[in-house]
Amino acid sequence: MVPHLTTSLTGPLLDLEKKILDCMPDIERWFRGQWIENTLPFYTSVDLRNSGFKLAPVDTNLFPGGFNNLNPDFLPLCVHATMSAVQRICPSKQRFLLIPENHTRNLFYLTNVAAIQKILTNAGMDVRVGSLLPEITAPTPLDLPNGDKLILEPIKRVGNKLLLDDFEPCAILLNNDLSAGVPDLLKHLEQPVVPPLYAGWTTRRKTLHFHAYDRVAEDFAKIIGIDPWFINPVFSQCGKVNFSASEGEECLASNVEAVLHETQAKYDEYGIKEKPFVIVKADAGTYGMGILTARSPDDVRGLNRKERNKMAVVKEGLEVSEVIVQEGVHTFESVNGAVAEPVVYMIDQFVVGGFYRVNTDRGVDENLNARGMSFVPLAFETNCHTPDCLAQPDAPPNRFYTYGVVARLAMLAAAKELQSLSETVDVDALPLPRTPPTMTRPQASVAAD
Amino acid sequence: MVPHLTTSLTGPLLDLEKKILDCMPDIERWFRGQWIENTLPFYTSVDLRNSGFKLAPVDTNLFPGGFNNLNPDFLPLCVHATMSAVQRICPSKQRFLLIPENHTRNLFYLTNVAAIQKILTNAGMDVRVGSLLPEITAPTPLDLPNGDKLILEPIKRVGNKLLLDDFEPCAILLNNDLSAGVPDLLKHLEQPVVPPLYAGWTTRRKTLHFHAYDRVAEDFAKIIGIDPWFINPVFSQCGKVNFSASEGEECLASNVEAVLHETQAKYDEYGIKEKPFVIVKADAGTYGMGILTARSPDDVRGLNRKERNKMAVVKEGLEVSEVIVQEGVHTFESVNGAVAEPVVYMIDQFVVGGFYRVNTDRGVDENLNARGMSFVPLAFETNCHTPDCLAQPDAPPNRFYTYGVVARLAMLAAAKELQSLSETVDVDALPLPRTPPTMTRPQASVAAD
Repeated sequence: MVPHLTTSLTGPLLDLEKKILDCMPDIERWFRGQWIENTLPFYTSVDLRNSGFKLAPVDTNLFPGGFNNLNPDFLPLCVHATMSAVQRICPSKQRFLLIPENHTRNLFYLTNVAAIQKILTNAGMDVRVGSLLPEITAPTPLDLPNGDKLILEPIKRVGNKLLLDDFEPCAILLNNDLSAGVPDLLKHLEQPVVPPLYAGWTTRRKTLHFHAYDRVAEDFAKIIGIDPWFINPVFSQCGKVNFSASEGEECLASNVEAVLHETQAKYDEYGIKEKPFVIVKADAGTYGMGILTARSPDDVRGLNRKERNKMAVVKEGLEVSEVIVQEGVHTFESVNGAVAEPVVYMIDQFVVGGFYRVNTDRGVDENLNARGMSFVPLAFETNCHTPDCLAQPDAPPNRFYTYGVVARLAMLAAAKELQSLSETVDVDALPLPRTPPTMTRPQASVAAD
Repeated sequence: MVPHLTTSLTGPLLDLEKKILDCMPDIERWFRGQWIENTLPFYTSVDLRNSGFKLAPVDTNLFPGGFNNLNPDFLPLCVHATMSAVQRICPSKQRFLLIPENHTRNLFYLTNVAAIQKILTNAGMDVRVGSLLPEITAPTPLDLPNGDKLILEPIKRVGNKLLLDDFEPCAILLNNDLSAGVPDLLKHLEQPVVPPLYAGWTTRRKTLHFHAYDRVAEDFAKIIGIDPWFINPVFSQCGKVNFSASEGEECLASNVEAVLHETQAKYDEYGIKEKPFVIVKADAGTYGMGILTARSPDDVRGLNRKERNKMAVVKEGLEVSEVIVQEGVHTFESVNGAVAEPVVYMIDQFVVGGFYRVNTDRGVDENLNARGMSFVPLAFETNCHTPDCLAQPDAPPNRFYTYGVVARLAMLAAAKELQSLSETVDVDALPLPRTPPTMTRPQASVAAD
């Protein structure tokens, strides 16, 4: 099933796609060097926006859900990539404990957990799933909507090791983004924890990621000879916001104004007639929560109580005090009349698939990862590594290759971001979960992270 | 298209398959360690025979043809694996010169060359094809049966570098097995040559390969707790044969007798009722030439002129003086009533596909890679890395996983064999081609190597 793209994608993006296709050997060689120099995330998903004149990552997830939404034909790609990742990170390990999010009632999310377990199993691992939830006190089998089964087991900590009944894992694979803090259970373990604890939202900041992406995008732009702006959204940070108390409003408004101004200047430079907008997001937020669109500084002044409440807390009740103000990238792709944005999945250095997040209720300048959306994941029909050089730049295999390139740039930025976190974060000092974990993730958006 | 296997595969092979499936995590962990310790061949194909009670490699090719016979759905697997291989062997290289066999009239072989070029191109390489043939004096475009095009170009040597017009390759990828010797053109190059020159049949010996395989099979058999014989054919070597002069006949006969005797003892031990046979092959031969089946020592005594001529020379007119006498493994697989044997393809450490070599004219104890055969490559429908643990051991995904395991054992043996050749072979002293290259490769067998 090929997503039917109804947009007229003309102008600069075709130029960008053509440049990327023409420079493919240089790009891949550059990537090879980067893969050797950097420690890559075990797995990554990247939300892209394609505005017809710009193609950019807008969010990079280091604990991706949604593996169940990939085209099942690409399972072998996932398996190869996992073999490569395990060989790189922990070659002698074969028993993995997979720790998911605490969403026992969200069967779509749990189908993703089962998909990850299947990939690892096919790569030759013994994988069992341990839950952080106190109510899981015995192995709990769950029937999933696609007919798969998943067993959640209680985790025991003995000394500095995590155990399940009759199972001593060699390594811990997290599919839990630690939004609410790092449980003591996970600290000071003898077993390696992949991704590392400092990759969780307790310590990650979107602005740190996009600072790293600035450098990556600049290096990459030199190779193909473009203005890095075509793959990189302008952003700034506002560090002292308290939505509940209406504090920091002017800081926010002035940052919105600055980003809109810089974006408008680029639009003028390249003759783009669209109206700029910005997205205001919690700097440590995820799950499409705590996000608003602003088309002028006034849009963030005098927010009403409902709007402020919406921005004030994100997943697991975490309060928002730092926000990123990011240039909005219109999505001009649509699938069957609904607005769509591509999400690309990677394991180790390899692009293993992707899908379109589709929302029938939202506009081209809005966050699509939203509660109440009609979410229709559409798996990419073609992989992202086999462009068709004889076809037009916008033929699906070529567009997907371009998506795979930009997604890998974001993944590389995450690698550099993690490297810098590893040098600065004191794992001992990581905050504990501040409240008992709650299940606030909007059901419909699960597959989209 | 799933090959329809009409054989009744019961008895020990099902046990073997079950053991391999049960030990998958241990096997994959052991492989991961091996991939780190050994330098792997860039690409490998392995001919397997599955007798229902035994599954063993019978030939390991380091310059595989037949990439055009793989299931096109697995192209992305080939691309990922190639990225991994290039990263391992020569990460900074991006321009490859591919040097194929000298079979300009064999369009099936050339379709394989185009397939390799396509894989490398999709992995981000610039690849051009240089011919060793003196008659290629200008770029020569060829139309292939599947609609692809291939351009053969003349190679120039300048100093210690190979060049094409306007193209300075960073590395040389050989798809030429150097059966006839190593041309001076390829010696002492500054550019890396992959696979190395000593991997050619000028220096390789099947017996050296199977000695390395003995050790690999023994280590592996310990992991899954089997007699290594179930995956390893008995063999011996005869070093002083001259078929043209009817010399060395008794050496050959006594080796045939010894291998038959040892095989019969194993058959008795495991209650196997089949009649043993041996395959006599040129120790440095390839392309299914210079091969005969013997069911008793008398079968190699008093060979008539035609039989002796058939054995005396192999590809490129090379004379045979060393032979391997190898336990024959019946093939009890058949596809649509014709005898079939699986061929598994690997790039770097990864199984990327395979197909069945099918011969309607041959028996279960004969070489199928033979002139005049009705050759029907049937691509494996499933890859070799995603077994279905809930299905029977002989369900196709599980059988293919088992094939992928045994094929990787042979590839690992080739890695060890190449390591030992690298320590003993003096590349300066490698013999030159002894005759102008001729095109003696049987057309029908091309896809089968």
